[in-house]
Amino acid sequence: MTSRSKELMSRNELEAALREIGATRYHSLHPFQTLLQEGRLTRPQVQAWALNRYYYQANIPVKDSIILARLGSVELRREWRQRILDHDGSETERGGIEKWIALTDGVGLDRAYVESGEGILAGTRFAVDAYVHFVRDRSLLEAIASSLTELFSPSVIGVRTKGMLAHYDFISKETLAYFDKRPVQAKRDSDFALTYCLDHADTREKQDQVVEALRFKCQVLWAQLDALYFSYVDPALTPPDAWRPGEAETGREAA
Amino acid sequence: MTSRSKELMSRNELEAALREIGATRYHSLHPFQTLLQEGRLTRPQVQAWALNRYYYQANIPVKDSIILARLGSVELRREWRQRILDHDGSETERGGIEKWIALTDGVGLDRAYVESGEGILAGTRFAVDAYVHFVRDRSLLEAIASSLTELFSPSVIGVRTKGMLAHYDFISKETLAYFDKRPVQAKRDSDFALTYCLDHADTREKQDQVVEALRFKCQVLWAQLDALYFSYVDPALTPPDAWRPGEAETGREAA
Repeated sequence: MTSRSKELMSRNELEAALREIGATRYHSLHPFQTLLQEGRLTRPQVQAWALNRYYYQANIPVKDSIILARLGSVELRREWRQRILDHDGSETERGGIEKWIALTDGVGLDRAYVESGEGILAGTRFAVDAYVHFVRDRSLLEAIASSLTELFSPSVIGVRTKGMLAHYDFISKETLAYFDKRPVQAKRDSDFALTYCLDHADTREKQDQVVEALRFKCQVLWAQLDALYFSYVDPALTPPDAWRPGEAETGREAA
Repeated sequence: MTSRSKELMSRNELEAALREIGATRYHSLHPFQTLLQEGRLTRPQVQAWALNRYYYQANIPVKDSIILARLGSVELRREWRQRILDHDGSETERGGIEKWIALTDGVGLDRAYVESGEGILAGTRFAVDAYVHFVRDRSLLEAIASSLTELFSPSVIGVRTKGMLAHYDFISKETLAYFDKRPVQAKRDSDFALTYCLDHADTREKQDQVVEALRFKCQVLWAQLDALYFSYVDPALTPPDAWRPGEAETGREAA
């Protein structure tokens, strides 16, 4: 554990410790992610991914609203609220959640079923709920630090999008529109959050909390893929209440 | 889903609906459990099970304390507190948690490591924490109903204990002492909880909540075994921060 040594880290050392978490624990390293972007999943397996990740996407503005309520200054709220605008959208611009629905539409899943949350895996629900509880129950610094996985997403999104477009005939560019703006948004958001953490982690204890918060968040993402892998890939033991291949099909395919 | 029909169920129908949940969703049906009791796990895999389940065991009196605080009458608290006594023990009698530590001792895991919670899987933590949050955030009726998995444990414990003793030379009767009293305790506790639920679920909505609470609890148990299976059986992809075979070994073996 990083928390053994008691000395204060320099800003560079703390940033390096955070990037090390990403290099070793980000969900881009999970076998499900590899299968997904290398075209080695079946259409139902991709549907299961899209369905389950909808629950994560739908809870992003929830966790950001909790953080918003805790920020305590106009200036910080102005910065943070952009995340909520990005995910909830507006009358003139589709938000991230709506774009994720375009993705589940694109892979042929019934929209009402997706939005109901019915059929998602217990592992998905427990992990996502743990994230929402974390930003409510931990310190504000830890809540902000838990968003730092966005440091690692821009590079991964390109690989994933390219791989999925190349390998799956049921995936179109429009289906993956969610990912178009995410690299720019994620860079902006994680730059801000990283600076906030480096500025405010002014004791070793707080620095360790920041590192642990990021580690926790990597586990939230990782555990969701564990659940998908176990339930839909191998041994593909889909639990009784979870979505099953063929269920909630619209017959609609990618445009 | 059971919740579609709007008519009030009779007591017998509600009890049958609950038992049906057990017959189709209790974790005795999980492949990890089958491997465990048929002697088809390695010693490190059994260690991983014992280590992770410790976190569940350690949180039982936490969730029961939350319920105790919500019961609202001397009579109900007198009944429910027995669960806490059973798990926390006394000066003269070992509690369930201490007996679980005897189990982790018996399979050769370092006690301080086990108690620290370090090295448990994220999937274990998220599932167990979800249970604790559930009994705090849902209605008292749902909190009590979530304990009803104990209806199904007595029959399973016998099979598991017998199988483990027969198949693993590193497992002794003393190592499994935790399970000696559980069937009697679980029967007493689940009789009480079942009667409470049948008495208090006096609308169809409440009946459905009781059924859903039990379904949720089955998912809490099931998800823990999913995590073990994925991380230690197949593909045995143990995440970076989780316990690894050989770690925290005492060299002590079963007596």
